[in-house]
Amino acid sequence: MRNLKITLAYDGYEFHGWQVQPGLATVQGVLREALARVTGEDPLPQGSGRTDAGVHALAQVASCAIRSPIPVSNLLIALNDILPPSVRLLRVEEAQPEFHARASAKAKTYRYRIYRGAICPPFRARYVYHHPFPLDEAAMQRAAAQVEGEHDFTSFAAVDPERGREDAPASCVRTVFSSAWERREEELVYTIRGNGFLHHMVRNLVGTFLLLGKGTLAQADLQRILAQQDRSAAGPTAPPQGLYLVSVEY
Amino acid sequence: MRNLKITLAYDGYEFHGWQVQPGLATVQGVLREALARVTGEDPLPQGSGRTDAGVHALAQVASCAIRSPIPVSNLLIALNDILPPSVRLLRVEEAQPEFHARASAKAKTYRYRIYRGAICPPFRARYVYHHPFPLDEAAMQRAAAQVEGEHDFTSFAAVDPERGREDAPASCVRTVFSSAWERREEELVYTIRGNGFLHHMVRNLVGTFLLLGKGTLAQADLQRILAQQDRSAAGPTAPPQGLYLVSVEY
Repeated sequence: MRNLKITLAYDGYEFHGWQVQPGLATVQGVLREALARVTGEDPLPQGSGRTDAGVHALAQVASCAIRSPIPVSNLLIALNDILPPSVRLLRVEEAQPEFHARASAKAKTYRYRIYRGAICPPFRARYVYHHPFPLDEAAMQRAAAQVEGEHDFTSFAAVDPERGREDAPASCVRTVFSSAWERREEELVYTIRGNGFLHHMVRNLVGTFLLLGKGTLAQADLQRILAQQDRSAAGPTAPPQGLYLVSVEY
Repeated sequence: MRNLKITLAYDGYEFHGWQVQPGLATVQGVLREALARVTGEDPLPQGSGRTDAGVHALAQVASCAIRSPIPVSNLLIALNDILPPSVRLLRVEEAQPEFHARASAKAKTYRYRIYRGAICPPFRARYVYHHPFPLDEAAMQRAAAQVEGEHDFTSFAAVDPERGREDAPASCVRTVFSSAWERREEELVYTIRGNGFLHHMVRNLVGTFLLLGKGTLAQADLQRILAQQDRSAAGPTAPPQGLYLVSVEY
């Protein structure tokens, strides 16, 4: 058996998320189908994590065991030929047998884009959250820095016992290496890099930062919300179309 | 009666072109419906020209007569509230009674985007024509300059008697003020500005420039094609998703 490391980008608007679901278009589903057609096998690519419906990826990583001897450069071309234009494989590489896209991940980076202009260009509507209303962006930036470091992020994890947490272990303690908002012309962009993320964690953080930006929450509330370890203490889940999985580090 | 000048952008991928067609989503159709809901009248917005299915607009212009006294600033907000995110009104202005978006137009600018990289990012797939194969881009640039000036563009007009020409008059003589290809990172971008355009004219020019870039046609062929005044002399129609109506001048 060979073990492949597949790096791919996708437009999440077109899919019901990453994970295979019967009868629904999912990224894992179309990738599995393309791999099956090219190899004649029945491989199941494992992602670094599940992205939800509408969430995009600039460089998601999947691992997959196959027997076929097709060289990686040919696999890249053949799979991209079959896949819809909304999913593009960027790289296909040989990986060590023990490599697993989720279990081997050391860090991930996510980004969240908010369009601040009054009128959102139609070409960006699927790719940003349009929020043209007043926000104290400096307060949001100060709050973002507060979640850096090791914290229990229970308050920001989806209450979702059926599905469990994205990163499996029962503990909700994660380390955030960096967390910052910045202005990029008409967009307010949040970038967070950490050693692991709970389900909905980035969107729940963004939803909470937005309450801080609106003045509904104050700076001091963020420490309290973390300490409460209760999902209902934090803000709402921000819409999916602004979120991007930017990269996975191994 | 008031006469409105409406400037709008749209993602052409979502529509069967500009012109109202029964049972199909068109830009004119959704704009008419939104105007009807806001004004309680039955106005028909007239575009500066019909864009085909898949063709985008950065600033299409439409004129429309209404009776309603609603101020233009309120119309802008109310109409954008109703319209899908794939159509955005950029400006609504009062116009002189004799203003007509098509008949009053003095010049138009179109752009065509070709993505040259090996793998087209999924977020750009709807907005460019992906052509990663070799092209003599310098030859295309030289050829582009050759269509500047006044020419009979019959060879580049769709043979389409049912629909007629976009700009109505029988003559296919048009003046091109500027015509140029330029590199913008991974994209090869064509921009043409002229006093009027025949149906499919920009896409037929691009399809012909591509044959020059591939070496199927030589520089000298372009004068011959213009002189032949025969659609079959020119290259194929380039795909719609690379084309943008950039602006209309009055």
